[in-house]
Amino acid sequence: MPKPAPAAYPELCSLLREAATLNAVGSLVSWDQETYMPPAAAAARAEQSSLLARLVHERRTNPRVGELIGACENDASLNGDGAVARSLREMRRDYDLATKLPGSLVAELAKVGSQAQEVWKKARADSDFAAFAPWLERMMALSRRKAECYGWPREGEIYDALLDEYEPGMTSRQVGAIFTPLRTRLTDLLGRLMASRNKPGDAPLKAKIPQEAQHRFGLTVLKALGFDLDAGRLDVTTHPFCSGLAPGDTRLTTRYRDEKFTDALFGTMHEMGHGLYEQGLPKTPEHFGTPLADAISLGIHESQSRMWENFVGRGKPFWRWALPHARKAFGRPFATMTLDRIYRAVNIVTPSLIRVEADECTYNLHIMVRFELERALLSGGLKVKDLPGEWNRRYKEYLHIKIPDDRRGCLQDVHWSFGLVGYFPTYTLGNLYAGQFWEKIRRDLKDLDTDLARGRFDGLKGWLNRHIHAHGKRYRAGELCERVTGRPLSADPLLRHLETKLGEVYGL
Amino acid sequence: MPKPAPAAYPELCSLLREAATLNAVGSLVSWDQETYMPPAAAAARAEQSSLLARLVHERRTNPRVGELIGACENDASLNGDGAVARSLREMRRDYDLATKLPGSLVAELAKVGSQAQEVWKKARADSDFAAFAPWLERMMALSRRKAECYGWPREGEIYDALLDEYEPGMTSRQVGAIFTPLRTRLTDLLGRLMASRNKPGDAPLKAKIPQEAQHRFGLTVLKALGFDLDAGRLDVTTHPFCSGLAPGDTRLTTRYRDEKFTDALFGTMHEMGHGLYEQGLPKTPEHFGTPLADAISLGIHESQSRMWENFVGRGKPFWRWALPHARKAFGRPFATMTLDRIYRAVNIVTPSLIRVEADECTYNLHIMVRFELERALLSGGLKVKDLPGEWNRRYKEYLHIKIPDDRRGCLQDVHWSFGLVGYFPTYTLGNLYAGQFWEKIRRDLKDLDTDLARGRFDGLKGWLNRHIHAHGKRYRAGELCERVTGRPLSADPLLRHLETKLGEVYGL
Repeated sequence: MPKPAPAAYPELCSLLREAATLNAVGSLVSWDQETYMPPAAAAARAEQSSLLARLVHERRTNPRVGELIGACENDASLNGDGAVARSLREMRRDYDLATKLPGSLVAELAKVGSQAQEVWKKARADSDFAAFAPWLERMMALSRRKAECYGWPREGEIYDALLDEYEPGMTSRQVGAIFTPLRTRLTDLLGRLMASRNKPGDAPLKAKIPQEAQHRFGLTVLKALGFDLDAGRLDVTTHPFCSGLAPGDTRLTTRYRDEKFTDALFGTMHEMGHGLYEQGLPKTPEHFGTPLADAISLGIHESQSRMWENFVGRGKPFWRWALPHARKAFGRPFATMTLDRIYRAVNIVTPSLIRVEADECTYNLHIMVRFELERALLSGGLKVKDLPGEWNRRYKEYLHIKIPDDRRGCLQDVHWSFGLVGYFPTYTLGNLYAGQFWEKIRRDLKDLDTDLARGRFDGLKGWLNRHIHAHGKRYRAGELCERVTGRPLSADPLLRHLETKLGEVYGL
Repeated sequence: MPKPAPAAYPELCSLLREAATLNAVGSLVSWDQETYMPPAAAAARAEQSSLLARLVHERRTNPRVGELIGACENDASLNGDGAVARSLREMRRDYDLATKLPGSLVAELAKVGSQAQEVWKKARADSDFAAFAPWLERMMALSRRKAECYGWPREGEIYDALLDEYEPGMTSRQVGAIFTPLRTRLTDLLGRLMASRNKPGDAPLKAKIPQEAQHRFGLTVLKALGFDLDAGRLDVTTHPFCSGLAPGDTRLTTRYRDEKFTDALFGTMHEMGHGLYEQGLPKTPEHFGTPLADAISLGIHESQSRMWENFVGRGKPFWRWALPHARKAFGRPFATMTLDRIYRAVNIVTPSLIRVEADECTYNLHIMVRFELERALLSGGLKVKDLPGEWNRRYKEYLHIKIPDDRRGCLQDVHWSFGLVGYFPTYTLGNLYAGQFWEKIRRDLKDLDTDLARGRFDGLKGWLNRHIHAHGKRYRAGELCERVTGRPLSADPLLRHLETKLGEVYGL
């Protein structure tokens, strides 16, 4: 029975809030699993996680939620362009997505994905693509079924259905339209950088910094940049991540190695970018559980992490501030470090085999390879058996690099093994959004470089809070980009940023 | 519709298992709150905890659970004395307890308890009993209502209803019958110890041991004694506790101070005793969620912690093994420590004001004061306004000590403020059970002292696993005590232990 909408919306929020609260518990349970859980707890933990996931799913697909959304949609007073109307649009989307997949398919994806991931682990270790190929076939077939349940616009293609899950409203045509010129110009830039006779030296990265000192320095940076450690933490895990797990509770992780302290530092700054977004979302009692307290998309989330990691962390103003602090924290290995040496070293560009180790410039080329190949695999234009050849050909063409084996080639990423198809582009979309926001920020904050060099990061953080974080899911990514920067997403700002900075570093 | 019992019991187990799994998540959430949760997360955390508590309660009071228990009870094949019959007896008890309290009373207890606890905090800080008195009245009134919902045997008294919640099957008459002779003999022993001219010196306790060294030593002890750190952890919190939160996941906490390293050490050993019980319970996929995987009572749980803390940790054989390890871990402050000095120092007895700081002998006198007073408060025989006077009179009589203010008198414990009435006796019951088990263990394990002195703790741990832990709730505490020791619970073994050991230490 449709209820009068004025009462329906609060009831809806309260039902979704319970789902969000259970989901927060699920996030804590996952965080603990990666940080402090004793190994023998694994089996019981799997049962806890799966029970929580079921309870969350039951609440999100509760038919009463569907009824209430319908009632609100029929209420003219809630239509239009206000916050509630936009919140409802996203509730509708979430509800439809959650109810479109039959339980049997969800279960099969989880089960086959979990098996395929195990097979992938071994296949990667053995560099044995043939062992993984049949499982990749199965996961692609399941992904196709998933895409068919979701559906896609008549003028689009099957890949859109999956991309839309991670980047709502984005299509493969749009991605292709941006990626193609980006690839050409990045390949060109890379060629010029590699031909330079004035390459930066990597000695600064080889300084041996004790992990304890790295951790102290990481915390100094987090605090200075504005991450609220009363509402968050920094811990150590095998794979760094950020979990904005509940209101007032955003947890970052990082990992330390004795060499290449910049891995941990930029890893921490990257996760902190995600963390500032989570801390900036309006997770108030009024909004928590509704789309108004949620992040827009993976691409926008990634724009926040990349901005702090690359635009700030690999910029000269940041190091002007950070170097004295690093000298103090690191002691002897940093005693004679100069601004110029460290700044140039953190901007070294090298074509490399492994995506997660790639630099700011070549990273996007790694992504494009994956986007093109998963798009073709899903549509059937590329056969699984032909994947290694196509992978290697593209690495040759885009990165001028020869793949020695599939372990360091098409077997390197975990994503496809458990069904993450349509996810990769969001990494580069994040870089693109970051580039476009960054140009606008530089126009809005005239003293940005001076401020950063003096350790005044609150202007930048405040800008992001106001223009990006505060809106929750009120706008879709493309809409936000246009509202904030006045233009649709384009590759130009990122390219200008890379060409200018790397051109200077490499003395082009 | 009663189902045939063969199918009913598995369904029952599966329903209770889901409740137990959610309860495990609730325990993790509480553990995190005490260990790593950022302060700003408190409000969201309260909501998560209360939601989980509600979901657990819904599952435990699910009418279907009642139906299934009824169906099993009517099935002759499940009657008798087997594990399933005993499991059903405890399921019935748990279900009845959970369904006897009306929701409104549960809510009122939680709400008033939470307010009263805040008032108590301030009243204790200000040593202002008058401020707390009206809240204690309310909590006692609510406790009376709770007891009336539970009910008690005709030949008993109202206090039994509450005691039974923590120590199933125990009555205040039984407690009184054991406590009275215990009090007389303890008071007598205390008098003789205090009159000794050969008191141990406390210099060993004043050694300044860095917290890091204390932590390393604590871990060494945990490992040696048999706590499985692959299935557990040790962290630092304000108030030490043990949470056997899930199969394969038992977490201990402790706290360190630079002085009196024995506080942390015995705290760790105490919690580890609880932890070994949790690790020894048969939390298998078959039993987890049923009473067969649960601890018997608070008293039996406490017997395990007290045994490792006092019977092992304050014994000479343990220190024969531990001293060289302590020397290695603590360095200079322990360089000249002798077995005799440390052994005597950890057995110092001093009448003191504060229960949680009390020694092995006087601790039980603190408990008796509380037992007598809460029993009288509940029955109405003692008015709240007369509590401080009665408290102080008893401390004078039992411990020969004058209470300087209510802060260090009847306001010192948090328990009554949130409705824990009937709980205190389980601390001393734990000491008594431990004493009685310990005598039996010494008869069964002829080489116990030699083994402990050589760091062979597995014989003792194995005995506890077999005779106590493995049974879950198959036996009630009194029944287990008789099965294991051949006698009903008595104060004699604990008294013999204290008289012998302390007599030797004090040269009586």
